Amino acid sequence: MIIVIQCKDQVGLVASISAILAQHQLNIVSMREHVDKPENLFFMRLEVEDGDGSELEKTLAEVLPAGAIISVNPIPHKKVVVLVTKEYHCLADILIRNYFNTLGATVQCVIGNHTTLQNICERFDMPFYHLSHEQISKAELEQQISDVIDQYAPDYIVLAKFMRILSPAFVAKFPMRIINIHHSFLPAFIGANPYKQAFERGVKLIGATAHFVSNELDEGPIIAQQIIPVNHSFTAATMVKAGQEIETAVLANALKLLFEDRVFVYKNKTVVFG
Amino acid sequence: MIIVIQCKDQVGLVASISAILAQHQLNIVSMREHVDKPENLFFMRLEVEDGDGSELEKTLAEVLPAGAIISVNPIPHKKVVVLVTKEYHCLADILIRNYFNTLGATVQCVIGNHTTLQNICERFDMPFYHLSHEQISKAELEQQISDVIDQYAPDYIVLAKFMRILSPAFVAKFPMRIINIHHSFLPAFIGANPYKQAFERGVKLIGATAHFVSNELDEGPIIAQQIIPVNHSFTAATMVKAGQEIETAVLANALKLLFEDRVFVYKNKTVVFG
Amino acid sequence: MIIVIQCKDQVGLVASISAILAQHQLNIVSMREHVDKPENLFFMRLEVEDGDGSELEKTLAEVLPAGAIISVNPIPHKKVVVLVTKEYHCLADILIRNYFNTLGATVQCVIGNHTTLQNICERFDMPFYHLSHEQISKAELEQQISDVIDQYAPDYIVLAKFMRILSPAFVAKFPMRIINIHHSFLPAFIGANPYKQAFERGVKLIGATAHFVSNELDEGPIIAQQIIPVNHSFTAATMVKAGQEIETAVLANALKLLFEDRVFVYKNKTVVFG
Amino acid sequence: MIIVIQCKDQVGLVASISAILAQHQLNIVSMREHVDKPENLFFMRLEVEDGDGSELEKTLAEVLPAGAIISVNPIPHKKVVVLVTKEYHCLADILIRNYFNTLGATVQCVIGNHTTLQNICERFDMPFYHLSHEQISKAELEQQISDVIDQYAPDYIVLAKFMRILSPAFVAKFPMRIINIHHSFLPAFIGANPYKQAFERGVKLIGATAHFVSNELDEGPIIAQQIIPVNHSFTAATMVKAGQEIETAVLANALKLLFEDRVFVYKNKTVVFG
Repeated sequence: MIIVIQCKDQVGLVASISAILAQHQLNIVSMREHVDKPENLFFMRLEVEDGDGSELEKTLAEVLPAGAIISVNPIPHKKVVVLVTKEYHCLADILIRNYFNTLGATVQCVIGNHTTLQNICERFDMPFYHLSHEQISKAELEQQISDVIDQYAPDYIVLAKFMRILSPAFVAKFPMRIINIHHSFLPAFIGANPYKQAFERGVKLIGATAHFVSNELDEGPIIAQQIIPVNHSFTAATMVKAGQEIETAVLANALKLLFEDRVFVYKNKTVVFG
Repeated sequence: MIIVIQCKDQVGLVASISAILAQHQLNIVSMREHVDKPENLFFMRLEVEDGDGSELEKTLAEVLPAGAIISVNPIPHKKVVVLVTKEYHCLADILIRNYFNTLGATVQCVIGNHTTLQNICERFDMPFYHLSHEQISKAELEQQISDVIDQYAPDYIVLAKFMRILSPAFVAKFPMRIINIHHSFLPAFIGANPYKQAFERGVKLIGATAHFVSNELDEGPIIAQQIIPVNHSFTAATMVKAGQEIETAVLANALKLLFEDRVFVYKNKTVVFG
Repeated sequence: MIIVIQCKDQVGLVASISAILAQHQLNIVSMREHVDKPENLFFMRLEVEDGDGSELEKTLAEVLPAGAIISVNPIPHKKVVVLVTKEYHCLADILIRNYFNTLGATVQCVIGNHTTLQNICERFDMPFYHLSHEQISKAELEQQISDVIDQYAPDYIVLAKFMRILSPAFVAKFPMRIINIHHSFLPAFIGANPYKQAFERGVKLIGATAHFVSNELDEGPIIAQQIIPVNHSFTAATMVKAGQEIETAVLANALKLLFEDRVFVYKNKTVVFG
Repeated sequence: MIIVIQCKDQVGLVASISAILAQHQLNIVSMREHVDKPENLFFMRLEVEDGDGSELEKTLAEVLPAGAIISVNPIPHKKVVVLVTKEYHCLADILIRNYFNTLGATVQCVIGNHTTLQNICERFDMPFYHLSHEQISKAELEQQISDVIDQYAPDYIVLAKFMRILSPAFVAKFPMRIINIHHSFLPAFIGANPYKQAFERGVKLIGATAHFVSNELDEGPIIAQQIIPVNHSFTAATMVKAGQEIETAVLANALKLLFEDRVFVYKNKTVVFG
């Protein structure tokens, strides 16, 4: 059983929480905690041996500071909707893990603004919605996307190389529930064509960043980042190819962390108990 | 203030420990714990805000299982003796950190079975003992080394590329207090000339391992390991050079972890709260 | 156009080769060469702009030492047969790349000694042969495997987590054409259950190795290796999961290098122009 | 013997160059070449067995395009001057390598705008010049620095955590001869306090960049970059400490590449034959 807690810090929090667990005869398998001193915030993730957690949320709320976010046994198998454009690598990785039940979540459907990835979805009996951005306004497209999403009531929306910028209005509907994979080591190379920018700057490493989507372009809280070395023999095109491998790995890692309830968000940052 | 605890696991340990801290008005800055289920062992490292820890060890012992190892405020600045042969890289790194007070420990003296590194020690006003292995027995050499060590009563003995194998009798005098840097990714390439072995095997990565010395050659508990990529253009000699960089980094990292009381040893393993 | 050359080393080889290319008006895009001095061997990989290479092999043979291995425009799209047991991760990655034409080779069929992975193959219209190892001898099983392979005349056979040891007789049929992914950082943890071995040894890094299969178990020439950090919080089981990610990545990388004609084998080693 | 060549690309360059080497009976030990197609530029680095190179530069110039930069046996042991402020880690690493003759260059003197690092220099008998930036103009300070540098006629000037921005006029005196270590993964976090910026952005990796100094702040050609993972438990202060390790390693690596004549500069980029 997983328990996650986020609240104001105060002396004795760990004692109060662990005393309640002991009262409930719940044995702690692993405990991770973090205090952000300047912000006076307390974060905890517990794994306890299975037992009766029915009253736990209420009992914990009684001893924790007002406003505490407590989740006992959070949704064990999240539902996700995936948005794509043309690139297959992140989507295919997600579909494979979903198919073999190792994603830690269930993909409900895939929405693409091109049809390129329709066939791979069909091979996995995965509903695919083609919602073209052509000849309609951004607001209309987002309304269509939103309508499809609402049918499935997903916990998270994954932008698996979805190459259109979402409006603040759309993002506001799903606060800290949209995850994007950006093809650079943020905050370097924000925006379009990061590999082209990286190539022109002559960097010796390229990277990828998985982050929550906020209203600022590529500025949301970062969940995971990774890099690979490059050199003069790379063109912008071969950087793209090499980068795809790292994008796939970083997004897979970020989703794993998220689906295991290891990611806490506050201000524009994350606490990740990896 | 640092508190480290190692004991048998049982339900309610965290509650008991944190309750005592709360009673003492000691605020937890960071808490790391690990339970080895199969071995039924509990490990904890706490950083608490400064306060009165004088009675803490006794109070904790009362609530913890019999045989618990409890250390409140362990020796804050360990004393170390360094053993070397001819290679300078690990020793020089240690001397520099010692000189600038960033080692987290104080080097008491250096013992070398060659004089190669005498001058660099002298430049840092560091006592250097030349104890040659020539024309004396291993037992005699180890007695001489032991005599010098005993003058300084160090907490740890660091083998910073000391190229002689110590006898079980010597090792037994300093159980889990001797740290070695082995120039391979253990358990690959145990023993002499690991780079030559690595070269002949045609590996694509080489590594280094910092470990406690036990009676089995290169078989003690591992503290830290790291690798670097190599390829066909490396000779055994250039592998040695590349390896020295990683040996220096791994040993420095292992010592930092050790001196900050982040390393627990049990069976032939370590728990490292890095 | 790719040109690969492997021969005895002698003065003037580069001059002779590049003179011939210049005569043929073939512009060198990239050139990689390596000389193994102790073995007196010369290795070269050239990418030249497209042109007439029809006479090139013959012309080069005239100026190179006797016994030179020269390949102008080697099979541009290799054929491969994949052998599996139950684990999906390496196979799925290969099937996805094959489906999207980014593998650099064409998978002809998959052979499994269990049916676990039959369905995923069918979803990609990939022929799957179930050849059980039960109730038949190793020799019989290998004969059956060999018969299927022979139907497809593949350039390479990929053991994508095929968990049975092949006999020397089988291996001898496909010299340096069978690639295996071993789930450890060779030469550490040869043989079965490497993650269990790694867990018990308490290592701080685990790895994977892609290598050619020779008659010695896990002793063939290494193509690629990679590692990931682990710590005390890992069990043997979670090491397996973490390891699967790195196995997938290492095998994919090794196959890419192989299919792009970047791998040369000699003695028990490889030259890899990555 | 090392030979480096940088010139316009044209068909037959490798043939011409290697033919001349063969005529001189110079055996090629290793050859690295790169062509930047869009820029039509050719780069080559050769290691040849020792022989008579006296006429080589002239002979090569005859067959290479006009304007070719040819260097046969470039200065084998470069002279460097090091500029520092207060942080010791990069300087100490350089002094140690210099002392043990493994730097690949000779440090002539150290210039500091504080006296913090004077003592460590004296311990290595290294001339130290204290040139304070206080109570004088930037132009005056730079004139003083320039005067000291001119006494030693160094090949390169290394900014080993020199925390003052040099004027375009100063930089122009030493074009592509000043190397800086910047404490971030450029182009992220240009300018002051990159670790503070990184902390506030909540990144999961921090890095360091060694680059040539040009007139744009932190915008010169990059030689080497490296990163290390960080997480929520880091403060800006502990990021600084962790970063220092990587700064030391990246600068050491960049200098090694530079001193072995493996770095070519063009436009705002480098070709590095590592």
